[in-house]
Amino acid sequence: MNFTIENVLIAAHDAYATVDVQVIDGKIAAISDDTLRAYAADLDVFGTTFDGRNKLLLPGFVNAHTHSSEMWQRGIMSAFPLELWLAELYDFAPIDTEKVYLSALGTAVETLLSGGTSVVDHLVLIPGQEFETIATAVRAYKEVGIRAFIAPLIQDESLTAGIPSGESTQTHEPYFRSTAATLEIIEEAVRQFHRPDEGVNILVAPTGIQLCTDALFEGCIELSDRYNLCRHSHLLETRAQEKLAQEKYGCTAVEHLKRIGYLSDRTTLAHCVHLNDADIAIVAETQSTVVHNPLSNLRLGSGIAPILKYRQAGINVTFGCDGASSNDSQDLLEAIKIGSILHNVTDSDYQHWITPRQAVEMASLGGAKGLNLADKLGSLTVGKQADLVLYDLTNLSLLPRTDPIGLLVLGRPTNVVDSAWVNGKQIIADGKVTTINVDDLRQELFNRSQWEITRKSQTVAQIEAHYRTVMGL
Amino acid sequence: MNFTIENVLIAAHDAYATVDVQVIDGKIAAISDDTLRAYAADLDVFGTTFDGRNKLLLPGFVNAHTHSSEMWQRGIMSAFPLELWLAELYDFAPIDTEKVYLSALGTAVETLLSGGTSVVDHLVLIPGQEFETIATAVRAYKEVGIRAFIAPLIQDESLTAGIPSGESTQTHEPYFRSTAATLEIIEEAVRQFHRPDEGVNILVAPTGIQLCTDALFEGCIELSDRYNLCRHSHLLETRAQEKLAQEKYGCTAVEHLKRIGYLSDRTTLAHCVHLNDADIAIVAETQSTVVHNPLSNLRLGSGIAPILKYRQAGINVTFGCDGASSNDSQDLLEAIKIGSILHNVTDSDYQHWITPRQAVEMASLGGAKGLNLADKLGSLTVGKQADLVLYDLTNLSLLPRTDPIGLLVLGRPTNVVDSAWVNGKQIIADGKVTTINVDDLRQELFNRSQWEITRKSQTVAQIEAHYRTVMGL
Repeated sequence: MNFTIENVLIAAHDAYATVDVQVIDGKIAAISDDTLRAYAADLDVFGTTFDGRNKLLLPGFVNAHTHSSEMWQRGIMSAFPLELWLAELYDFAPIDTEKVYLSALGTAVETLLSGGTSVVDHLVLIPGQEFETIATAVRAYKEVGIRAFIAPLIQDESLTAGIPSGESTQTHEPYFRSTAATLEIIEEAVRQFHRPDEGVNILVAPTGIQLCTDALFEGCIELSDRYNLCRHSHLLETRAQEKLAQEKYGCTAVEHLKRIGYLSDRTTLAHCVHLNDADIAIVAETQSTVVHNPLSNLRLGSGIAPILKYRQAGINVTFGCDGASSNDSQDLLEAIKIGSILHNVTDSDYQHWITPRQAVEMASLGGAKGLNLADKLGSLTVGKQADLVLYDLTNLSLLPRTDPIGLLVLGRPTNVVDSAWVNGKQIIADGKVTTINVDDLRQELFNRSQWEITRKSQTVAQIEAHYRTVMGL
Repeated sequence: MNFTIENVLIAAHDAYATVDVQVIDGKIAAISDDTLRAYAADLDVFGTTFDGRNKLLLPGFVNAHTHSSEMWQRGIMSAFPLELWLAELYDFAPIDTEKVYLSALGTAVETLLSGGTSVVDHLVLIPGQEFETIATAVRAYKEVGIRAFIAPLIQDESLTAGIPSGESTQTHEPYFRSTAATLEIIEEAVRQFHRPDEGVNILVAPTGIQLCTDALFEGCIELSDRYNLCRHSHLLETRAQEKLAQEKYGCTAVEHLKRIGYLSDRTTLAHCVHLNDADIAIVAETQSTVVHNPLSNLRLGSGIAPILKYRQAGINVTFGCDGASSNDSQDLLEAIKIGSILHNVTDSDYQHWITPRQAVEMASLGGAKGLNLADKLGSLTVGKQADLVLYDLTNLSLLPRTDPIGLLVLGRPTNVVDSAWVNGKQIIADGKVTTINVDDLRQELFNRSQWEITRKSQTVAQIEAHYRTVMGL
């Protein structure tokens, strides 16, 4: 669809401008401001027109780290740190692909309604139905029309290997699937589904050093190089992982990942809570991207990632919601707000604090950079893909009128997304998703679940005492 | 109005029960659960019935600290710590009562739509129109029907006195109004507006030790004792205030407030970020209530209040949004969420973390206790006032069905308040405020404001260098 958004507010330098934005064949074809109007009358002749008055247009944000199927357990997970929380999560993880389909739809819808047009789904695979899980997520995201970066979550060590041994000598069950078989699944997914031009991308995504061998990382690097794939991973989310890396490698996890060659300018690293200064220098030097997930870092007690230090070191930082069981939502504006203001308590010099405009750039261009797409996405620039979000500035939560971006980032915007386009295709209009029936989705989510509060994780019962001992609790 | 909510989910012990709740003459008259249904058929005969199926009923929360007129500057305030931020705030504060009226309406509406039925408005008074400001807020809150606790913000020292002197010898302009005149305004407000039975309460509320003399505190104590008024104040929000207390008194602010007798079981203390262990013991011993404002403490870089320590010391803790210029919203569910999970990073033992059910109790009964109304408000108890909120559990943001209170507290609920009653009067129905026209409010807020981003505070320009020196920046 070709269209023009007329008289819309956009951020321009440190102020705002009222402009017309023209989209042709999925790309931003022209942006004309007030001063050019007289000379650019022909901008308006193409396609449909949208009234941009009292609206703000921004590039779509990237929800740069999530796990869609966690939606099934949001609200019910115990107040645990990551290692125990994961045990509970996996004890009750959904095991049918229809649930995977519905939670991918839900994740896409909540991301879109909070300003995101791209989602990086570090997708938990159903054992024995790994390929089908990926195929299902692809189908869901294509139906909604969000730009999808599917990062199948893989590992080749079993859950207990992710907890430091401490003084004890622990042995762990071998993982149920071989490293080679896992890599084969990923390669097949790449062959069948990796279609960047159609808005579907596959990433290599070992879960992290805590549950992956070097062989798995190296296999992923090889696939990434051969098929030009982005790389994703969790990194040093908890103190336990920091300890584990020392036990496993005798160095930090960052040093180890650098040594095996996983870090690169198309590598996104979720969390990065426990990095030391030398680690920070490595992340900067390798041009890797940090994905900040402030809500889950608080919810799981992981810590406050040193985001201001990362920015000072020149590291690209963007935001993720993380899975809905540790958040417990997929509201990207909430992640951006908390991920900005949280760090004000870590540095008393307010000149270092993240401003709302910087936060918007981190969430849009920062996300695009991490996905190696800064030339195609992440800003309102002529020639870039039209992944756009139009915000209604007459909504109560964005009033009185002050600084629109300040209101959007620092406030608590509710129902503010008027329209969204991905690759020039409109997928939200008048605040409603146009591509799927959200009422049907709600009904399905309702029907396939029950209110419950009493459940006990067997695995937590088995590992909790060891965890408390190792962590000195 | 007498009414019965039928077949509604309520929290019962550590589970849920489906019950009927009957309200007569503004009070909870009966609660009958499934097992009693056969014997309690006559519960249903009174009044209107509401269908409670697929809904959760909770006691209304208390927005226990805010400054309503800050709504006019939300989204635009610079990234400053409190002392500079206040200077900017006052340079641009609204000076007409019509704006005070509209922002009180807006504060009430946003509080209600996020589960609050009571608001403590630490109300900034327009110089020269102090009494009119209070009268205006009373009018707004009565129109909306929210239970109002109006705490006129008073001081008797000028702004610069709130910054520590450090090595310098500073003198400050005298405050423009005498202590006696200020106390007279409060007493007149009490005589005219303090009507607890009608849902309007006046509190004594010196802004804090940073800008008040002992004479003002003592005058407030005297009024509080004579008229049976609750007491409110900011307390140790910033490191600067911690320094200032030592300069002013040679002891901590808590020790000083105890000495002059301000602390009591009807005293609520906003912030309490920088208390030492001895201070914590004093707050516990005096049975004062801490009002936790997590969003503004992050936004202004004030710090993380040691809320888990307070709870372990037996201190009553509740939540506030704080004014909308430091938040920048009035979404109480957001304050409850962040005010719960934030503290998980301060204590690695997850057994100390705040659970969703505890958070709900802090926000409801905790708020009532702080206002000396625990016998009348804050829980679903027969005989208490019917300040009730009914949540729609079929909303996308509360699906799939898991633990309803977990979803409400840990998720990002949007448009979930179906109905709300204050003193048995319905003021939200079908998700809409019934008492005022919110579209008209939006239009007024729109008309009386402009999008702007460039403004400079003269006062900040005057004091910033001194602030940076004193704070070692």
